[in-house]
Amino acid sequence: MKATLIHGRHDIRVADVPDPVLRDDTDAIVRVLRSCICGSDLWPYNSAEDSPGGNRIGHEFLGVVEDTGSAVRTLRPGQLVVAPFVWADNTCDFCTQGLHTSCRHGGGWGSDGTDGGQGEAVRVPFADGTLVPMPGEPDDALLASMLTLSDVFPTGHHAAVSANVRRGDTVAVVGDGAVGLSAVLAAHRLGAERIILLGRHTDRTDLGRTFGATDVVAERGDEAVERVRELTGGDGAHATLECVGYVEALRTAIESTRDGGLVGRVGVSQYTDVPLGVGSFMRNVGIRGGVAPARAYIEELLPDVLDGTVRPGRVFDRTVGLDGVPDGYRAMNEREALKVLIAP
Amino acid sequence: MKATLIHGRHDIRVADVPDPVLRDDTDAIVRVLRSCICGSDLWPYNSAEDSPGGNRIGHEFLGVVEDTGSAVRTLRPGQLVVAPFVWADNTCDFCTQGLHTSCRHGGGWGSDGTDGGQGEAVRVPFADGTLVPMPGEPDDALLASMLTLSDVFPTGHHAAVSANVRRGDTVAVVGDGAVGLSAVLAAHRLGAERIILLGRHTDRTDLGRTFGATDVVAERGDEAVERVRELTGGDGAHATLECVGYVEALRTAIESTRDGGLVGRVGVSQYTDVPLGVGSFMRNVGIRGGVAPARAYIEELLPDVLDGTVRPGRVFDRTVGLDGVPDGYRAMNEREALKVLIAP
Repeated sequence: MKATLIHGRHDIRVADVPDPVLRDDTDAIVRVLRSCICGSDLWPYNSAEDSPGGNRIGHEFLGVVEDTGSAVRTLRPGQLVVAPFVWADNTCDFCTQGLHTSCRHGGGWGSDGTDGGQGEAVRVPFADGTLVPMPGEPDDALLASMLTLSDVFPTGHHAAVSANVRRGDTVAVVGDGAVGLSAVLAAHRLGAERIILLGRHTDRTDLGRTFGATDVVAERGDEAVERVRELTGGDGAHATLECVGYVEALRTAIESTRDGGLVGRVGVSQYTDVPLGVGSFMRNVGIRGGVAPARAYIEELLPDVLDGTVRPGRVFDRTVGLDGVPDGYRAMNEREALKVLIAP
Repeated sequence: MKATLIHGRHDIRVADVPDPVLRDDTDAIVRVLRSCICGSDLWPYNSAEDSPGGNRIGHEFLGVVEDTGSAVRTLRPGQLVVAPFVWADNTCDFCTQGLHTSCRHGGGWGSDGTDGGQGEAVRVPFADGTLVPMPGEPDDALLASMLTLSDVFPTGHHAAVSANVRRGDTVAVVGDGAVGLSAVLAAHRLGAERIILLGRHTDRTDLGRTFGATDVVAERGDEAVERVRELTGGDGAHATLECVGYVEALRTAIESTRDGGLVGRVGVSQYTDVPLGVGSFMRNVGIRGGVAPARAYIEELLPDVLDGTVRPGRVFDRTVGLDGVPDGYRAMNEREALKVLIAP
């Protein structure tokens, strides 16, 4: 089959790889219908060491079950399924408490001899635990929104949950990438009354407004903090969702947060230290979050996706076939595309 | 009257100051029965700039109402009251949500022309909001425990609440000072099943054991983290309470916390940055807490103090009169005393 490999910095190739086969009796083989490129894929895209053999990449996909191991109980060939961006047994103590990213038997797509998501098919470990069946025969738009359940929409939701967003809250969202926009949508869904989106790409912040943002702040750094404080009577936001991953964005998030509030961080940390000194100590501002346990949220988010209450698939503004994946990376990296959908 | 002033580094003096008088109609005058020295008083003790006039100090006290302003409704002369370590109106939105340390009209003892707690009497702003009446005619031991409601016991409780300690949890407490020991007591009171106290002063950790610590770890840094992980099957503690304030203690706390867990920080931050890089991001470890809104917790903690379920006053291991306050600072600073009670 064909799959995407990363050979080094800015070196993405689509090549022939072995077809996946069942290895453990808890495996399933999934034929990929839709995959996509993640903002977090751009970190290796911009920094990977040279690898002559290449490494499989991609961790978001939706597809049809093709085959199942003898111990798989809940899935059958032909079923449409979404895969969260890590696999997990869904039975260990971490999974039971909703932290599938720390599953005692879990792992990441493309590592440890598994397939990446940006290919034609994937061997899925712990298929019963990992995959979530989708009902019906959805159209293209619904497929795109279903695919976001793999990562980007639950990641935005995780930011909101981690920051303890409640009905009526004022929420600030730092970052207008696909994760930031998903965080806007998630905060809106959870009942936030006012959502201040910090971003300066008007095409993206415009989509943010349709997702529920009530205010847009194009400034950055101290000026952005000042604007958020102006918009909130001097107090700051009840909850702030950090969807970038740089320490400057984190500082903006912390300073934009109301006393007693929380920063929910989901931007993959490109920092080693968080600026939470005596100022935030006296204000009781904290920080939670991290890599999102998407699997824990899919059942909760699915009904609103199915009935169109939310349309998170609107973050995709370009679709490519597998051959178009290398250019998809380039386009996302150059901010020419917000998020690239792959239809293998 | 006599009161304590700080004139500079290691320069504590007891001097005559004007008797407090009612200034606003919401004020009360409280004659101090018991006060004490706080670990946080040692920060200025070790670093204050020279001040020829001196600055009033002390923020924990319990006493008897002597006089009240015309607008005071809930207090009458003769009543025994505890003062939390900041004053607050107890009616603004921050107070209503339990964050009295961010009260819109609040402030700290000894600042803005108010009295410090380490003196014979104190003018109390917003007396109805600030002071909490104590029942009965308590004996010395109960007075000591009641006095801890002013700061140190609610601060330990705030660490536990901020870290979301729940019944059955394994909790690690970093620091064996009076706050750390109070955090042990608070975690035990909230139902923690196992409490690992990190400290190396056996007289203090012995008291910690009577407060509920099930394990003591005398190692520091990476070795302490290793010990906590050994004691928890490799996982770390569900919640970790940071009661020191140095970044090394914070790093130990973060690394000792189980995936998905929270660090509750109450050690006054002597750091500008918190080491919460990609490791804690992937493990979803967060941090909450800060200066403790003692006022919000006093009513909840009081019944257990009154009936002897908890005896937080045992953190006091020395009692001085006002004239003994300078030596009390020295003794606490040299770790000769754990916490010094003042009986003016």
